[in-house]
Amino acid sequence: MASTANAISLSLPTIHNPSSLSKPKSLPDFYLRFHNPNPKFTRVGLSVTNPSNRIRTLSTIRASAASVMEASSKEKALPTIVEVDLGTRSYPIYIGSGLLDQPELLQRHVHGKRVLVVTNSTVAPLYLDKVVDALTRGNPSVSVDSVILPDGEKYKNMETLMKVFDKAIESRLDRRCTFVALGGGVIGDMCGFAAASFLRGVNFIQIPTTVMAQVDSSVGGKTGINHPLGKNLIGAFYQPQCVLIDTDTLNTLPDRELASGLAEVIKYGLIRDAGFFEWQEKNMPALMARDPSAMAYAIKHSCENKAEVVSLDEKEGGLRATLNLGHTFGHAIETGFGYGVWLHGEAVAAGMVMAVDMSYRLGWIDDLLVKRVHNILEQAKLPTSPPDTMTVEMFKSVMAVDKKVADGLLRLILLKGPLGNCVFTGDYDRKALDDTLRAFCKS
Amino acid sequence: MASTANAISLSLPTIHNPSSLSKPKSLPDFYLRFHNPNPKFTRVGLSVTNPSNRIRTLSTIRASAASVMEASSKEKALPTIVEVDLGTRSYPIYIGSGLLDQPELLQRHVHGKRVLVVTNSTVAPLYLDKVVDALTRGNPSVSVDSVILPDGEKYKNMETLMKVFDKAIESRLDRRCTFVALGGGVIGDMCGFAAASFLRGVNFIQIPTTVMAQVDSSVGGKTGINHPLGKNLIGAFYQPQCVLIDTDTLNTLPDRELASGLAEVIKYGLIRDAGFFEWQEKNMPALMARDPSAMAYAIKHSCENKAEVVSLDEKEGGLRATLNLGHTFGHAIETGFGYGVWLHGEAVAAGMVMAVDMSYRLGWIDDLLVKRVHNILEQAKLPTSPPDTMTVEMFKSVMAVDKKVADGLLRLILLKGPLGNCVFTGDYDRKALDDTLRAFCKS
Repeated sequence: MASTANAISLSLPTIHNPSSLSKPKSLPDFYLRFHNPNPKFTRVGLSVTNPSNRIRTLSTIRASAASVMEASSKEKALPTIVEVDLGTRSYPIYIGSGLLDQPELLQRHVHGKRVLVVTNSTVAPLYLDKVVDALTRGNPSVSVDSVILPDGEKYKNMETLMKVFDKAIESRLDRRCTFVALGGGVIGDMCGFAAASFLRGVNFIQIPTTVMAQVDSSVGGKTGINHPLGKNLIGAFYQPQCVLIDTDTLNTLPDRELASGLAEVIKYGLIRDAGFFEWQEKNMPALMARDPSAMAYAIKHSCENKAEVVSLDEKEGGLRATLNLGHTFGHAIETGFGYGVWLHGEAVAAGMVMAVDMSYRLGWIDDLLVKRVHNILEQAKLPTSPPDTMTVEMFKSVMAVDKKVADGLLRLILLKGPLGNCVFTGDYDRKALDDTLRAFCKS
Repeated sequence: MASTANAISLSLPTIHNPSSLSKPKSLPDFYLRFHNPNPKFTRVGLSVTNPSNRIRTLSTIRASAASVMEASSKEKALPTIVEVDLGTRSYPIYIGSGLLDQPELLQRHVHGKRVLVVTNSTVAPLYLDKVVDALTRGNPSVSVDSVILPDGEKYKNMETLMKVFDKAIESRLDRRCTFVALGGGVIGDMCGFAAASFLRGVNFIQIPTTVMAQVDSSVGGKTGINHPLGKNLIGAFYQPQCVLIDTDTLNTLPDRELASGLAEVIKYGLIRDAGFFEWQEKNMPALMARDPSAMAYAIKHSCENKAEVVSLDEKEGGLRATLNLGHTFGHAIETGFGYGVWLHGEAVAAGMVMAVDMSYRLGWIDDLLVKRVHNILEQAKLPTSPPDTMTVEMFKSVMAVDKKVADGLLRLILLKGPLGNCVFTGDYDRKALDDTLRAFCKS
């Protein structure tokens, strides 16, 4: 268990009804930042322990809050903290607005005096200066180098990874340095694998700037690169010192990237959190409109789900694999169609529809759930079928090298039972898989 | 602590006097294989616990042994076992003659049904068939693929590593496969890093075939590849399931490779085991003549020293760094002179002489020890100075990117005090380093 030292326990009403945020601007709750008419405020640690007792959520609020307003930019918003419990490798996820304006959050996790920020050509002009400032403000002994990679999944390969090593070595970084990933999932995965491998492992911080990275890839320590024959086939399990999610970075995110990230948010609901799925069904318009409080709620709940699963099964012995609902079909789409033509979440969305279709053919779920999945993905403007060019053979060929193949048996994550339940199994009628592939492919 | 189940404790006289093996053919001891005139024999587990209680040695002998002879090739020699104690990642090192003729030793550590043997073009013609046989004999459900890399330190790079991933992916290996490293240190380091990174980590077995790999690189989980700017800059700490040392593989080892490995054997004596060093001073002729019992003694004692250090400091927080005596100077030689022109142990030998010289200049050791180091290296036909082409600047440039630089301070392993004592420190007079570099370089 994570330490609860310094967390003041206080009984405050928490919102357990997942639909209570369906009007996020009218109901106060602790996920929102409150305007405080009184300049003095009390910091309160609100400890919400989930049933498994393996993750802990700390929300800091201003106790005298009375109305919901955007905090002024000069006020410091205290972050929501989700703790990932992994023994000596535990770490916090900070979630909130304006966190990059709070240098102490980052600096407490920097070891040594040298930092390498790994980012890409899209994110660097937007946030690199801000991150360098957050790392060095009031901290002149720290020096920061940076490496700016080309942007896109197609660059998530060994050749690009070597540029990170080149820069680290040319900068003469030593074992006590810290690598900082600033960007989306591709940057986080590559920077994390570079940190895992440079001098056999250096410190590492995640600053995810996309919904996809904030709700999924930055949490849990999966790092790696693609191989021409498959996604993420080369990598490491390597946990960061912290994850810092400044929700303000979403302001610059393209709509398509936003939707892509929502595919993973929807996934958490489907596999293990029916209440969260129901909340999403009501709040998808708010999420698509980037309502800050709805977005913060979705990020926090996603991180909690991910943190809990990772805490229980870090190395993906079984449970963690369920986070890959739709991903085996999705990886086939990404590989067969060419990395980066579809975004990851777009491929996962189509993959989830296929997994749901197969679950229905097996008689494991009812048709209402199939419809609800279609509906929510359509609301999020995500695809509900693979690209026309995908063939049955393309799916089969790529799926045979998926990491979830064990001793030749392809295991899949499929829904089974009421909303929020799934299985990871190779024990299914192969005909259902064939039928699903044929139903979604023209040849 | 490793489990001691099934180890029958028995009080047998053990040889603690390191010089007692100075006539290895005349004195019986449990490191040797005994001829048993009676075809029935009793397997005895002899537990020798070292003072730190962190490693355990099991020697299996034939209880009625009376004279020292080579065992007939048809008899199975029971291996000496050195246990590396790393909690859930503990593993055995099997040491002995004819171990590749005992399929059950390897097979008990193979998980899943697929194996990839990684070897090189020199070792494959000698031992690949034998290893494939050991993996598959009586075990038809296991299938073995192999990848044969070019031989040499200069191929220990990302390009060659990718050939291992290519083969693993083309062979559609899954997470439950096992990688087997068959060869010297380069193969072990590359195969280990490939195993650490393939699908974020698969099982791994070391079958080292050089003295260097048997006494050092195969034990302790350091894996990795070189970067054009420095050795082993990219890698992982990744422990194998077991290390199998068949001493018969040394029969095909070139003399220069043999000597190179002895540099690391000498190192253990210098940094932490005065008795072992004294034994080596008496037995170096036997080692150079490949006397099987002397060699087995040296390998076992080296593995014990290494296993103890690794158990206490797996990730090289401090103690483990002392295993790098001479390596910082040596790495500079290998990098400055070009990988593979000198063998690793040759560079380490010259590097140890430089470290010893510097220790003497600092007044930390007496001149007798300096002479003893020279003498033993000369007996082993190892170099006692760097190549003529090395300059002070080449040393300084390469040493500045060494992994042992922390926050700009180069820490070195230096001898201090009586034989068998060393320090890992950045707290030394820089003039002594400069003087040593100038003394060993023409410019």
